[in-house]
Amino acid sequence: MSSAEFAFIDWLRSRTPGGGRVVVGIGDDAAVVAWPDPAHLVVTTDMLLEGSCFLLAEAGPRRVGRKAMAVNLSDLAAMAARPVAAVVSVGLPRAGGRALAEELYAGLRDVADAFATPIVGGDTNSWDGPLTISVTLFGEATERGVVRRSGARPGDWLLVTGPLGGSILGHHLDFTPRVREALALHAAADLHALIDVSDGLARDLGHVCDESRCGAVVIAERVPISDDANTLAARDGRSPLEHALGDGEDFELIVAVSPEDGARLVATQPVAGIALTPVGECVAEPGMWIEEGGTRRELPPLGYSHEI
Amino acid sequence: MSSAEFAFIDWLRSRTPGGGRVVVGIGDDAAVVAWPDPAHLVVTTDMLLEGSCFLLAEAGPRRVGRKAMAVNLSDLAAMAARPVAAVVSVGLPRAGGRALAEELYAGLRDVADAFATPIVGGDTNSWDGPLTISVTLFGEATERGVVRRSGARPGDWLLVTGPLGGSILGHHLDFTPRVREALALHAAADLHALIDVSDGLARDLGHVCDESRCGAVVIAERVPISDDANTLAARDGRSPLEHALGDGEDFELIVAVSPEDGARLVATQPVAGIALTPVGECVAEPGMWIEEGGTRRELPPLGYSHEI
Repeated sequence: MSSAEFAFIDWLRSRTPGGGRVVVGIGDDAAVVAWPDPAHLVVTTDMLLEGSCFLLAEAGPRRVGRKAMAVNLSDLAAMAARPVAAVVSVGLPRAGGRALAEELYAGLRDVADAFATPIVGGDTNSWDGPLTISVTLFGEATERGVVRRSGARPGDWLLVTGPLGGSILGHHLDFTPRVREALALHAAADLHALIDVSDGLARDLGHVCDESRCGAVVIAERVPISDDANTLAARDGRSPLEHALGDGEDFELIVAVSPEDGARLVATQPVAGIALTPVGECVAEPGMWIEEGGTRRELPPLGYSHEI
Repeated sequence: MSSAEFAFIDWLRSRTPGGGRVVVGIGDDAAVVAWPDPAHLVVTTDMLLEGSCFLLAEAGPRRVGRKAMAVNLSDLAAMAARPVAAVVSVGLPRAGGRALAEELYAGLRDVADAFATPIVGGDTNSWDGPLTISVTLFGEATERGVVRRSGARPGDWLLVTGPLGGSILGHHLDFTPRVREALALHAAADLHALIDVSDGLARDLGHVCDESRCGAVVIAERVPISDDANTLAARDGRSPLEHALGDGEDFELIVAVSPEDGARLVATQPVAGIALTPVGECVAEPGMWIEEGGTRRELPPLGYSHEI
């Protein structure tokens, strides 16, 4: 990282909260973070690329910075881990100059600050290519450990933390990662499996099924549909449900819990700010189905594929 | 990271050594690495951009992958830290297809394996832009702690670990990061300050002086000049010394030690495979000078600037 070498990381320095754990921040070749004992280091990284993950002219650099930090926080939320610190690498288009960098960093900091996550280092480059940002986030497991994708069991209830679909209209840039909600859920119940909806409900639920070696049935009428999904559906003629199942970048959580915990969580709604909605259940037979009007059909893995 | 989602990270899985510390590797939203207690997490990140940090057509993707991992290892070496694990984010030009990704990953793995550093996760994207790679590396401090840039004192000897200059002729792609050498030096002496030569001897020594609030005098006749610096000098008419002082990406180490330790290290050469060469000393007065034929003149901060 050679962080001291990078003007913008230097510029960030005075604004970065220490978090009490940053032993060496800016000014050396690497950052040093105190690690409590015994603990597990939970690491996630996500890269955003202009034209592929966002349109810079449309979104503006501040919202791009926010998204770059938020998608990584969402991945930690999906493990029910606590964020500790972040590093940021950027390739800045020369034409954007210092203003672009400042806005981008302001956005990164907006979200990092909101989750008390110091940016402890990074790498700033200028180039003739489009804007590219890579954030790596370090978190720690709570005393209950992390929650993986692989623990869902037949009979488990599947809950989601919010309405889905149509995020391309703006939510994909402006969402709040479900970090606090994941930790509150982790404290409130024995979570069997957890994932964030980044590729679409159908596809991400498929990841849980694959890792848990089970299947799932989604009840169409129960899927919470966002206003944006309805808006998009009115424009493009696809159904709101299709948007909710396949659009992706909702960054809500899918949780698998025992039926008892599921019923209790739905009845008591113990997590402030979200409505836990049961959308279906896990089944023993591998595969994914959707039940609509009492009829069950196969649910294809709609959504974003990362295959090359 | 959502690593399970990414075909190429999956493809890496079977080839990644566990290192005994990877609790959750591929198949979840984040990787989990066991952290020994008590220890400090040392974190560094570096992004390589096609056209700016390498020419893909000239270097080939395998060497680019090697460089991407090696520059990060060099930053850990510059802290005298032990590498533990890495995550990798890439933006792959669509035109390169799967072959480009495979070669790139093979290169990343060549170097990661050579330093027993498992790649525990990542983010693979295809886009219409040039190749971009961001590696984040986690290391741990040894029982002697990390070595920073800020501990040099007036009178300290300045040593370098190898010949400098002309790395653009190939060394910048094919160097071996001085990880083992840094750890061996750290065990052999009380290192006051340490940095790797990424931006050029003059500029990186300037970073040490800035952080240590001292100055430095370099003895021109002592600077070890690489064959490539001589080759380049014969071509472009600049002096070999100028190349050695300013070219950068040598990835040798600059070490500040007491005169006693300096004399001992130079006399005994305790680190296999490198020649420790004294190139000057630290002085109380802030500033940088070069002494050539007994005459002292100011040494400008030649080399690469990261200012935007």
